[in-house]
Amino acid sequence: MAVKVIDVKVGVFDENNRIADEVRTYNRSKGTLMINIMASPGAGKTTTLLRTIDALKDEYRISVMEADIEASVDAEKMQAAGVKSIQVHTGGECAMDASMVQQALQEFDTDGIDLLFMENVGNLVCTAEQDTGADYNVEILSVPEGDDKPLKYPLMFSICQCVLINKIDTRNWFAFDDDAVKERIHKLNPDADVLFLSGKTGEGFDQWIDWLRDRLQNH
Amino acid sequence: MAVKVIDVKVGVFDENNRIADEVRTYNRSKGTLMINIMASPGAGKTTTLLRTIDALKDEYRISVMEADIEASVDAEKMQAAGVKSIQVHTGGECAMDASMVQQALQEFDTDGIDLLFMENVGNLVCTAEQDTGADYNVEILSVPEGDDKPLKYPLMFSICQCVLINKIDTRNWFAFDDDAVKERIHKLNPDADVLFLSGKTGEGFDQWIDWLRDRLQNH
Repeated sequence: MAVKVIDVKVGVFDENNRIADEVRTYNRSKGTLMINIMASPGAGKTTTLLRTIDALKDEYRISVMEADIEASVDAEKMQAAGVKSIQVHTGGECAMDASMVQQALQEFDTDGIDLLFMENVGNLVCTAEQDTGADYNVEILSVPEGDDKPLKYPLMFSICQCVLINKIDTRNWFAFDDDAVKERIHKLNPDADVLFLSGKTGEGFDQWIDWLRDRLQNH
Repeated sequence: MAVKVIDVKVGVFDENNRIADEVRTYNRSKGTLMINIMASPGAGKTTTLLRTIDALKDEYRISVMEADIEASVDAEKMQAAGVKSIQVHTGGECAMDASMVQQALQEFDTDGIDLLFMENVGNLVCTAEQDTGADYNVEILSVPEGDDKPLKYPLMFSICQCVLINKIDTRNWFAFDDDAVKERIHKLNPDADVLFLSGKTGEGFDQWIDWLRDRLQNH
């Protein structure tokens, strides 16, 4: 019985990886770079995205895929900010997989889109487990959550090319050790870029925007 | 194929509910009240628990079951605070289920324990989906996460008897509407108690300690 379950899981993951590659091929054919944004609930994904869009929207055509269990508030915020967005309801699932992304792309015209952000479900566990077909994974960890999170959610920090340490404007009110968090992330993932910023004030945003520009230019 | 998967899931949930009832019967036979603490990563579960233990440890015998993907840092903190604790590694699973609790209780002697806290995996999705066998579910939502979380994670707020709004000492630095969050929670769950406190400063802790004392006396 246990062996059966494991077989099914392996099958599902193999199938997911195949679809994830299809998603990447499809996005490449359209000239679209896709970035998967992951974080805990309330780490500041939406605020950070809105500021990022504002910084790049005159240079690049941007769209946002919002994934939530059932709410649509974030997609509405993106629309209000003037970018095309689609809301995906995961139907109770705690993360997007490649097949959900593929389905969403079939309904969401990305012709001429340079940069597609996916704001994943707020979660540090399930979201890390499946390749969504994104070109890059970015994790946002906010200062109030604490610098110990890489110890507790190692898979998440292992699969990201970039970690944004957000809400640095609140650093005076929380015990958060910048060097310790960097060391913990790099122990899991030596190549990860770790950038410190505030989605609210804009402090530190230049390096993040440069990071995205580099990926857009080399896509 | 899809139908098969659904059948398996229903079977698993039925089985989980049966085991959850066994866990409650077992805890009742020992005179132990079990509280399942859930929250996002970094919402302050551990800090709140440590202060709670400090407030009640002279009156009640307390133990803590710590659930994490793989780390053991929280159980070590609990031991250091002088309470018996056990660390459960969920092996990648994003939440505790009743069977994991039952296994942990077999290895964790709760003779004479009045109050057993379970600190669940930091997650607002999966943890809400399964009955763990706890007598009460308590969710901790921290001010930095934002007052919109009940809109995004409705199941979590629907299954809790008590919601602690934590980190109220940081209320000046975040836009957080106390009335809005209460209204959103009560729309999902009219009977939920919503208590505002700070695990760090202790502000508002009396009502939470009273809430626990009431449950302990009526168990």
